[in-house]
Amino acid sequence: MILGKVIGTIWATRKYETLNSYKMQLVQPLNSQQQKIGEPIIAVDTIGAGPGELIFYATSSEAVIAMEVDMAPVDASIVGIVDSIYSEIN
Amino acid sequence: MILGKVIGTIWATRKYETLNSYKMQLVQPLNSQQQKIGEPIIAVDTIGAGPGELIFYATSSEAVIAMEVDMAPVDASIVGIVDSIYSEIN
Amino acid sequence: MILGKVIGTIWATRKYETLNSYKMQLVQPLNSQQQKIGEPIIAVDTIGAGPGELIFYATSSEAVIAMEVDMAPVDASIVGIVDSIYSEIN
Amino acid sequence: MILGKVIGTIWATRKYETLNSYKMQLVQPLNSQQQKIGEPIIAVDTIGAGPGELIFYATSSEAVIAMEVDMAPVDASIVGIVDSIYSEIN
Amino acid sequence: MILGKVIGTIWATRKYETLNSYKMQLVQPLNSQQQKIGEPIIAVDTIGAGPGELIFYATSSEAVIAMEVDMAPVDASIVGIVDSIYSEIN
Repeated sequence: MILGKVIGTIWATRKYETLNSYKMQLVQPLNSQQQKIGEPIIAVDTIGAGPGELIFYATSSEAVIAMEVDMAPVDASIVGIVDSIYSEIN
Repeated sequence: MILGKVIGTIWATRKYETLNSYKMQLVQPLNSQQQKIGEPIIAVDTIGAGPGELIFYATSSEAVIAMEVDMAPVDASIVGIVDSIYSEIN
Repeated sequence: MILGKVIGTIWATRKYETLNSYKMQLVQPLNSQQQKIGEPIIAVDTIGAGPGELIFYATSSEAVIAMEVDMAPVDASIVGIVDSIYSEIN
Repeated sequence: MILGKVIGTIWATRKYETLNSYKMQLVQPLNSQQQKIGEPIIAVDTIGAGPGELIFYATSSEAVIAMEVDMAPVDASIVGIVDSIYSEIN
Repeated sequence: MILGKVIGTIWATRKYETLNSYKMQLVQPLNSQQQKIGEPIIAVDTIGAGPGELIFYATSSEAVIAMEVDMAPVDASIVGIVDSIYSEIN
């Protein structure tokens, strides 16, 4: 999984039907020092992450498991909201 | 999922049979400021996205879920047409 | 899917058994202007693409769908031969 | 699979429910000389790897196989703790 | 699939149980001129590839198909040993 921050929302009225009840969040990937890495991606939000929150998201075909519909064409899902990061080893 | 713009179409009469009823769109990946990132990819269009439209597409093996046939060798599908992008957090 | 050109063939007598009846083609990935991008990959040929032909290939676990055997450890399959690319939008 | 070192832990009380009994470890990817490559990722720990240990992790949708729950939205799992690396060929 | 050379072995006594009967090989990815590309990865060996041999490996979730156990958290498998590469097109 990858750390990220919710930085916005994508609005799309025409979309694949099983996606209709889900929010599409714009997520900036971050490294463990919470610095930006690469470009924002679009992830389905399944746990109610709000704008500005530090989250982690799963990619690959397992992302769809986080959704209540069985079959949805999704490749990134927000699966946790980060409370803290503990790291003392380099 | 990744933002993109439909910039063209790939014509292919000889192709894997379950792909025959689908349009293969050439899609330029974009960042959240709608600037180009990387090279165009080829995505199956399942929602009727036209040339020039801002869309988002799913990759990985879940892309095939957006198709009516059960089994198709597809790794990228257009799954939504973007109305607007809301982002006020950096 | 990604555009590419068949540039060669890999010969391997010892290989995983379900791969035995398939040709392993060396494929150079191309951008939409048919310029090389990155290094050649090895893709299973399921539609009879010959050397020099412009094709597109699927990656990820859906690549195996293009094969007649149910289970084969394959991550890239040639799934279409390109007739033409139409693109007038940048 | 990729070599890595456990460098920390991610704490998240709100997360997708099937993830609740698993530890989310921060893992620094390493090359075969144990030098850092790229940014740390977050992997589920299924074998009890402690901080500072040299491990290898699997990505892609097979990462979920290492978990006792059938369905979890996970894309990286620690699957082995390295005793030694033997390499005399370049 | 990607070309590579077996350059070493990873020893790990503590690992996910379905991996126990498999050898974890260190594989250097190569381009079609057999020059190194990127960092070595760890692949399961299912066909008895020895050190120094030119092989090709599959990634993604199909890699697990090459194993005799149904479920193993594996994302790269050696699936063929290369006899020769034929390429006369650029």
